[in-house]
Amino acid sequence: MEKYIKVYQETRKKIKAYEYFTWLMSWDMETEAPKGSHAYRTRQYEVMAQEIYTIQTNLEYMEAIDYLMEHLCELSDQALAIEIKSVYKGLRIIKKVPKDEYIAYQVLISEGPIIWAQAKENNDFKAFQPLLEKIVLANRKLVQYLKTDDLKGYDILLDFYEEGLTTKEYDHFFETLKTHLVPFVKEVTKKSKKRFKKALSTSIFPIEGQKAFAHYLLDVAQYNLDHGVLKESAHPFTSGVSSQDVRITTKYHEDNVLSSIFSVLHEMGHGLYEQQNDPKYDGTFLSGGTSMGIHESQSRMYENMIGRSRVFWSKHYPKLVETFPKQLKDVSLDEFYRYTNRVERSLIRIEADELTYSLHIMVRYEIEKQLINGRLRVEELPKRWNQLMRKYLGIVPKSDKEGVLQDIHWSFGAIGYFPTYALGSAYAAQIYHKMNQEISVEDAILNDFGLINAWLKERVHQFGKTKTPQEILMIASKEPFNPQYYVDYLISKFQ
Amino acid sequence: MEKYIKVYQETRKKIKAYEYFTWLMSWDMETEAPKGSHAYRTRQYEVMAQEIYTIQTNLEYMEAIDYLMEHLCELSDQALAIEIKSVYKGLRIIKKVPKDEYIAYQVLISEGPIIWAQAKENNDFKAFQPLLEKIVLANRKLVQYLKTDDLKGYDILLDFYEEGLTTKEYDHFFETLKTHLVPFVKEVTKKSKKRFKKALSTSIFPIEGQKAFAHYLLDVAQYNLDHGVLKESAHPFTSGVSSQDVRITTKYHEDNVLSSIFSVLHEMGHGLYEQQNDPKYDGTFLSGGTSMGIHESQSRMYENMIGRSRVFWSKHYPKLVETFPKQLKDVSLDEFYRYTNRVERSLIRIEADELTYSLHIMVRYEIEKQLINGRLRVEELPKRWNQLMRKYLGIVPKSDKEGVLQDIHWSFGAIGYFPTYALGSAYAAQIYHKMNQEISVEDAILNDFGLINAWLKERVHQFGKTKTPQEILMIASKEPFNPQYYVDYLISKFQ
Repeated sequence: MEKYIKVYQETRKKIKAYEYFTWLMSWDMETEAPKGSHAYRTRQYEVMAQEIYTIQTNLEYMEAIDYLMEHLCELSDQALAIEIKSVYKGLRIIKKVPKDEYIAYQVLISEGPIIWAQAKENNDFKAFQPLLEKIVLANRKLVQYLKTDDLKGYDILLDFYEEGLTTKEYDHFFETLKTHLVPFVKEVTKKSKKRFKKALSTSIFPIEGQKAFAHYLLDVAQYNLDHGVLKESAHPFTSGVSSQDVRITTKYHEDNVLSSIFSVLHEMGHGLYEQQNDPKYDGTFLSGGTSMGIHESQSRMYENMIGRSRVFWSKHYPKLVETFPKQLKDVSLDEFYRYTNRVERSLIRIEADELTYSLHIMVRYEIEKQLINGRLRVEELPKRWNQLMRKYLGIVPKSDKEGVLQDIHWSFGAIGYFPTYALGSAYAAQIYHKMNQEISVEDAILNDFGLINAWLKERVHQFGKTKTPQEILMIASKEPFNPQYYVDYLISKFQ
Repeated sequence: MEKYIKVYQETRKKIKAYEYFTWLMSWDMETEAPKGSHAYRTRQYEVMAQEIYTIQTNLEYMEAIDYLMEHLCELSDQALAIEIKSVYKGLRIIKKVPKDEYIAYQVLISEGPIIWAQAKENNDFKAFQPLLEKIVLANRKLVQYLKTDDLKGYDILLDFYEEGLTTKEYDHFFETLKTHLVPFVKEVTKKSKKRFKKALSTSIFPIEGQKAFAHYLLDVAQYNLDHGVLKESAHPFTSGVSSQDVRITTKYHEDNVLSSIFSVLHEMGHGLYEQQNDPKYDGTFLSGGTSMGIHESQSRMYENMIGRSRVFWSKHYPKLVETFPKQLKDVSLDEFYRYTNRVERSLIRIEADELTYSLHIMVRYEIEKQLINGRLRVEELPKRWNQLMRKYLGIVPKSDKEGVLQDIHWSFGAIGYFPTYALGSAYAAQIYHKMNQEISVEDAILNDFGLINAWLKERVHQFGKTKTPQEILMIASKEPFNPQYYVDYLISKFQ
């Protein structure tokens, strides 16, 4: 037993080191590397992917995992037992996919975001199509390799991102939302929408001011810059490599002051989750968030439940006015608050309001299901996208840039990921409900923001990947997942 | 033969990939990584250094190199022959230094710059001393391991950075400078120095304007941002990993507009050298600059011969005035030009004028010689530094921050590097002299800057490491190294 544990830990140390370096490559690629460095980097990454593969498929290591898996109950270290289970599950991909296909796919998705970014910039779906075709094909093959009696097709991909959730659960979840929210959204968006101060939508908000306010927000939410970075990228994201180094990005738009504010709050939610992991999981496979859904619940909570609340802006709006005195001189707190919570049928997911957000996810969920099950070809995507946008949101993008090309995710192979975004919002409502029973969130926002971080650290963040999403929900909210909290929250807020 | 070449090339491909990832780590560490990520990164790097060591000491690879070294003349590929010679020479370190010592030293110097930066920030030499003691000790042991009948002590370190140059040549070189320059410097700096517009030394130049002007300079010198980056760091540097990705940094000081201007010009000189390498050397050990001296000749040429020339500012000063209209409204071109070329006994090497620059290098050269030969202890450094500053420059720093702590180099183990800075200026004068005979540099600055880059590409940059420093001098200037060009250039300019 001791011997196998040692082999396992020694190999884990290596894999984590390689993970660090490839993590850094992705970060650099998406935030800083010059365009022309692309081909050279890809060649280096290809070599590295081979090296990592060799380490992961080392016989001694595989044997150690098999042995430990068979003797899980005898392991005194519970965290290790959980880790072994998850590594064992992850290894099935390496065991079942031929090596050449596996490596080629790793290289493909490492360069995907570059191709996507250029295609989006040029509004050129055809430039993205060949890449996406390869990615879809690889995923369709993957689910063939991995299918079992219990799990097949798109369900296998869904399970990657949110263990235990398949089309059955998601269909039910989305049906609940449709039943309760679609008529409600119709009602809310019927009302005239031009009630907002023009200054909010037509002013220019210089980037320097937005940057300063973003840093003010980091300070408010006590995001730790000794272990974090805020940078710019084409698409805001969070990228952590241990509790010691968790980086977030945003994108500033001169003509939209809200975009960077809410993306910073959102990514901070992700970032705080990983910064508040128990550091003892650093260097193991248990660091990070337990699932995409729980991860998204944290970002949504900071962005929406906290960041779009009236009390938050009653405290921080004066600072925003101080930053942009000319632009906001005639805009009252009340007008600003209503503007940040306006509901509209819009095109861009990451800028969608809370109420219509899950409709955007439904578009992607249906498309992914059809792509993986072979009922939709990649070339038909722009057309299908627009059809579904009309069906769920009642509007159609004028360009693919604002449509099917808007998201980075498919370019790095993330199919099955989007549905966790809607799920995360629902988890967030449930957890927030409980937190608000135990501490006054309003008081905390006004007087001691650290109380919020501390409650979430204790109930969610500290555990890393040692608890399943459903266990986290039980620990945090004391009951199993119940989407009704989300429906109730939205209806009560937007009534 | 074919078999050995293949083994060599396959291993080189791996080593270059690892080099890419560790290069990226250094870049990130010095420009972006949060302070608190230091310990975690160091642990990952330690694993990686072991992996690289294993690859470099692989028996098959060592055998292949030995075989190819013995059959150099039979190699039809001349570049490969040159590469093998250099790799063979480099491997002697790995062959002679015990593995544990070697790895420990790699890790030590990878974290050195972090410790140095903090010590400098806090003006705390004692915080830097233990690290530097370890580095000096490691280098003293290293020269013991590597000593031969021909080369020993400090000479071994000097030879790392400038092949063929030892204390004998450097002593002679510095003596030449002392003989001709020291009395000249005394004469020049005797004149009253307060003849400059106060606006230049007392105005505040906002960072945003300096950034814009830095990007204007990149454009002027045709630095390719498709294959490059300009960023900020504690100490300006250039870091390239192939001709496809060559990054430079600067540091902006609100109270000193010249600092970033000349550091950008300087680093661009380094950067253009590597960007203009023949791309066929990418992925081999022949990419980059052939020696530190030749590298520095390029940076010095762009910074001084070109960047501090009257004609350069006759063309670009209007843009600077446009950027800082208030600050420069009463400063004429002539006053600005004289200010950029003022001579003074100053404390900071990287901001020293052309004329006194080599005196700063002499301070470091003497200290390094004494440290390695055991005639000086690290703890005595601040005192010795100040003594030598008084001796050569006639001024003494008030703090170690402006004294012995000012440079990053020793923190990453670069002992023997500084002397190449003075040498580079001398090479630059010789190469510039020839270039100016063949093309009119003044015309090029006024009408077509690309002519300068093209001439240097043809005579210096394209070759990467396939020519020795002395071969480059012959190709570029048609004669062997002759420091008189440097002396003549300085005396004629500052007369």
